[in-house]
Amino acid sequence: MAGVDYLADERNKAEFDVDSMKIVWAGSRHTFEVADRISKLVANDPAFRKDDRPMLPRKELFKNTLRKAAYAWKLITELRLSEEEASKLRFFVDEPAYTDLHWGMFVPALKGQCTDEQQSKWLPLAYKMQIIGCYAQTELGHGSNVQGLETTATFDPQTDEFVIHSPTLTSSKWWPGGLGKVSTHAVVYARLITDGKDHGVHGFIVQLRSMEDHKPLPGITVGDIGMKFGNGAYNTMDNGVLTLDHVRIPRDQMMMRVSQVTREGKYKQSDVPRQLVYGTMVYVRQKIVADASCALSKAVCIATRYSAVRRQFGSQNGGPETQVIDYKTQQNRLFPLLASAYAFRFVGEWLKWLYTDVTQRLAVNDFSTLPEAHACTAGLKSLTTTATADGIEECRKLCGGHGYLCTSGLPELFAVYVPACTYEGDNIVLLLQVARFLMKTVSQIGSGKQPVGTIAYMGRVEHLLKSRCSVQRAEDWLNPSQVLEAFEARAARMSVSCAQNLSKFSNPEEGFAELSADLVEAAVAHCQLIVVSKFLDKLQQDIPGKGVKQLLQAVCGIYYLSLLHKHQGEFLATSYITPKQAALASDQLRALYSKVRPNAIALVDSFNYTDHFLGSILGCYDGNVYPKLYEAAKKDPLNDTVVPDGYHEYLKPLLKQQLHSAKL
Amino acid sequence: MAGVDYLADERNKAEFDVDSMKIVWAGSRHTFEVADRISKLVANDPAFRKDDRPMLPRKELFKNTLRKAAYAWKLITELRLSEEEASKLRFFVDEPAYTDLHWGMFVPALKGQCTDEQQSKWLPLAYKMQIIGCYAQTELGHGSNVQGLETTATFDPQTDEFVIHSPTLTSSKWWPGGLGKVSTHAVVYARLITDGKDHGVHGFIVQLRSMEDHKPLPGITVGDIGMKFGNGAYNTMDNGVLTLDHVRIPRDQMMMRVSQVTREGKYKQSDVPRQLVYGTMVYVRQKIVADASCALSKAVCIATRYSAVRRQFGSQNGGPETQVIDYKTQQNRLFPLLASAYAFRFVGEWLKWLYTDVTQRLAVNDFSTLPEAHACTAGLKSLTTTATADGIEECRKLCGGHGYLCTSGLPELFAVYVPACTYEGDNIVLLLQVARFLMKTVSQIGSGKQPVGTIAYMGRVEHLLKSRCSVQRAEDWLNPSQVLEAFEARAARMSVSCAQNLSKFSNPEEGFAELSADLVEAAVAHCQLIVVSKFLDKLQQDIPGKGVKQLLQAVCGIYYLSLLHKHQGEFLATSYITPKQAALASDQLRALYSKVRPNAIALVDSFNYTDHFLGSILGCYDGNVYPKLYEAAKKDPLNDTVVPDGYHEYLKPLLKQQLHSAKL
Repeated sequence: MAGVDYLADERNKAEFDVDSMKIVWAGSRHTFEVADRISKLVANDPAFRKDDRPMLPRKELFKNTLRKAAYAWKLITELRLSEEEASKLRFFVDEPAYTDLHWGMFVPALKGQCTDEQQSKWLPLAYKMQIIGCYAQTELGHGSNVQGLETTATFDPQTDEFVIHSPTLTSSKWWPGGLGKVSTHAVVYARLITDGKDHGVHGFIVQLRSMEDHKPLPGITVGDIGMKFGNGAYNTMDNGVLTLDHVRIPRDQMMMRVSQVTREGKYKQSDVPRQLVYGTMVYVRQKIVADASCALSKAVCIATRYSAVRRQFGSQNGGPETQVIDYKTQQNRLFPLLASAYAFRFVGEWLKWLYTDVTQRLAVNDFSTLPEAHACTAGLKSLTTTATADGIEECRKLCGGHGYLCTSGLPELFAVYVPACTYEGDNIVLLLQVARFLMKTVSQIGSGKQPVGTIAYMGRVEHLLKSRCSVQRAEDWLNPSQVLEAFEARAARMSVSCAQNLSKFSNPEEGFAELSADLVEAAVAHCQLIVVSKFLDKLQQDIPGKGVKQLLQAVCGIYYLSLLHKHQGEFLATSYITPKQAALASDQLRALYSKVRPNAIALVDSFNYTDHFLGSILGCYDGNVYPKLYEAAKKDPLNDTVVPDGYHEYLKPLLKQQLHSAKL
Repeated sequence: MAGVDYLADERNKAEFDVDSMKIVWAGSRHTFEVADRISKLVANDPAFRKDDRPMLPRKELFKNTLRKAAYAWKLITELRLSEEEASKLRFFVDEPAYTDLHWGMFVPALKGQCTDEQQSKWLPLAYKMQIIGCYAQTELGHGSNVQGLETTATFDPQTDEFVIHSPTLTSSKWWPGGLGKVSTHAVVYARLITDGKDHGVHGFIVQLRSMEDHKPLPGITVGDIGMKFGNGAYNTMDNGVLTLDHVRIPRDQMMMRVSQVTREGKYKQSDVPRQLVYGTMVYVRQKIVADASCALSKAVCIATRYSAVRRQFGSQNGGPETQVIDYKTQQNRLFPLLASAYAFRFVGEWLKWLYTDVTQRLAVNDFSTLPEAHACTAGLKSLTTTATADGIEECRKLCGGHGYLCTSGLPELFAVYVPACTYEGDNIVLLLQVARFLMKTVSQIGSGKQPVGTIAYMGRVEHLLKSRCSVQRAEDWLNPSQVLEAFEARAARMSVSCAQNLSKFSNPEEGFAELSADLVEAAVAHCQLIVVSKFLDKLQQDIPGKGVKQLLQAVCGIYYLSLLHKHQGEFLATSYITPKQAALASDQLRALYSKVRPNAIALVDSFNYTDHFLGSILGCYDGNVYPKLYEAAKKDPLNDTVVPDGYHEYLKPLLKQQLHSAKL
């Protein structure tokens, strides 16, 4: 960070202690210190350069990713990094690779679904990367509906083997990362068939490639599914296609923790509760929510810094133009996203607690909170990933034309992030699951069953249906209990209204299908309430550091008041608030923008991102944007020569009116 | 289109005459026939293949574009195509190229801003492409604010020349398409300085490159600005950077239609009205609106066809799963976009009429409608491009995971379209211009000046502020005058409310800045009213063809009712409608979805797009998606070899635990 800091004036404006905020953002001093150390290690190592990604052709790009992954693994082993440090290192390398699936899906699947005996065989190999694994579930014709998978695993009692087979084109495995070119093994999901009977979808460990020469084993056809959205982005990953032609595996490669097939071909369940799988799901989804806050905060950091650098209009007496961050239209789009990044960070932190809680309950066979935890994590995954994908694109637009350059970092950030809206549960499908849970909760009101956790407010539904907002002045919208009741009343009323409309249908499933758009809206209202309430809870805690808590209160206010404005139709339609109160909320929102404005740069500095991790010229720490854009442009392959390839064949004949004889 | 049509059942469901709808969509039988003929000419010529674009490295991609542009020009001249046909051919080649700027900006600038004498010198060269031109306005540090440009053009009376100069880094021209590698000439915008006096920004014709060897002329530094968002997409274009170091051009290369510099260095205005420039602006913006309906309709066509092909869940008794297009959640996201594509088509058609009207008025020095026409086109540009960019991305998500593959066509469509939100006026800046016009109109109410055209409803503002919606049953929302009044009342009330809040500020400019977010919302309400009213107007016309008009009525209903639902907060806050009436609108909207569902495929067939133009496997006419996805995947460069490049260097040593000695 040598040289002039063009954003120093902005940094001097901050009214809070940035170092304290960095700890709050990281979650703890320890987490901050590990992240700080490892991110700098990666940033300072030229082996991890990533600015060339958008320019590399697919093959070179992919080969480069293989190199980085090997180099990272070498560092991890040579520096004897802890598991936490190793995982942070992969995180800061910031490039999708087969290792994501190996460590993030393959290893957890082994741990969660294999017996102890199976684990003792496979885990040591996986931990040392003597095998590389992927997670082959999705098929060409089957995504969200896992029960519709077509691949079969038929037990052959003669040989004590399973025969894994792809019976149709649409049953090809399609999408699994790491499958296309790298993985030696896969967890393959297939319909288990014993003695002609279909037992539904189970997982199997299948070796794909020879350990000698990496060639696919007999019966296995495997390859890459081709280019995906964006420059660089997920094209560093070998998402793959796999067909299996009667591939035989030993019986003990079925993952047998929850159910088994005996030597005789008998199918049986173990006494391990099937609900365990929900514990894993809570884990995966809390990680997705944490990733959302990270991706959104990167975009917000870029857009905020560049909004302070960039000037447009408003020049008076020959002075400089106005910084675009000073325009209310810019603040009105940018600050709610900044607030969302913080909100998602805190709700993600709470989800970590929820995961611990669920795990402890599962250990003593307490499944009572599972439905609520499942609905809550499904909803938060959907809410945060949708808001983040949209938010990154909005940040790109907030950077004006230059946001469209790859060197802004935003096109790749968007392209690499947006699949999160689809994987691990399509966002709309997940909201419908939340809605089902909400309708069930409403139907049980008065039955004596008390709703718990994030749905506890439904226990006060009678009050919430009757109450009216008592806000009289704009400042009243800063009262946490006032705000909480507004979001609870809106969510409760929307759910109850849906339930009433559903009751008019004689066939409940038909009603659910017909009213599904309304149900999705009710689910969103419920999820937004969760995020708001967890942010408000956070502010009840002791938060050290000069001005830190005060500023977070303003940020929280921006989060809920911008939601209130965006969804004011729902607040008004349920008659909890009046148009006048909605207008007061907008007034208070504007006041909070002014409060946050001088702190904006410090608020994004608090993320503590290196320039390497951000990967954006527009968002560079020192704000010295324009010379860097200039230098970066020079590196484009088109600038290798002054006169472009193709001039002699395609431009000169055109200019000289000699196209008739040109070879085109 | 040989082979089985997997969507034949869907096509048989249509309740209207598709051939008639094709004419309605095209605008006239003549337009339909030209487009049909030329699009097939392009689709059937392998020289125009475009499916390889996402895989090509930048240099090859660009060279290929040069080849296609030369080939297209050869065809145009050899087939003696008319201007209309030539322009359609470039359109269906569907690849951004320097020719877009040459024909779309350089030639029109010469026509609009040069004197007759200048035109007779330059136009014949440009028409024959003996010179290639671009439009160099935007600078590295200056986008929206044209008056802030820094490049200077200083008259030197000694030599009768202008000295064109880039005084700073931020004054470099940055972004102009065709500038980086191709153009021989540019229209350069610079501050005109005579005798030390700054006369503001004017246009100059500057030769950039030698006509002999294409090398930049002395004093000129020019190159490409580097990779932009997306695969293929705008990377076929050489958006460029240009610095001028005291480059001298003859005085007669200032474009002198509106103002001149004499031999003595005297600056003077001609008697050509400056307002002429607004006529050009109306022309450019009506073209952008037409492009919006085209881009959105492509995305909608892909998502609609694939939603009929794709099945998920709902399988009963082993039968096939449900087509996703039958889910109300899918319809609720897809059909409003289908309706928007039609709405934008018709408002675009009306804008063509507006352009003719404005042109005729300008010819007789009638400038009275200009402010209204300017506000209206600015607003519609903003509204339609924002909705289209968001809509394309929504269509991509509606295709599930496969929408993320480049072969879906949607990633490139999004990336190539989205700059429309920024160029020719940033969308938020344009809405603020509309808001200024609205505030001015409100302030003149009662002054005797009658508002005209799209703002005429403000003449009835007293009625609109008092009236209440009289809808009592869901079907009442099909009454055009009812709907029109609802949108007028909402727009009028929002404008008046903004005006009242503005009046509380002692400094009007401060008030405008502080309330700009509200002003933008009022502008959007006004623009949506225009689109709705023009769609309703269209339905007042005679529309031939069995069932065509009835279906368009349903489509129009979906357009305005989905807007009403999305913005119900505004309708409710202004108290024009009640929550009950809003609920009835949602009921009617669902009924219209059911009406449109069996006609959905035929509605997108009516766009008459070839598979080449669509460029999407998911959207292919015959619906035979999965085998085509499979074949396309095989062509990825990563699949050239079974064992990937990099295996021996980076995977084998890792798997064999020999990284310590590997060169990484």
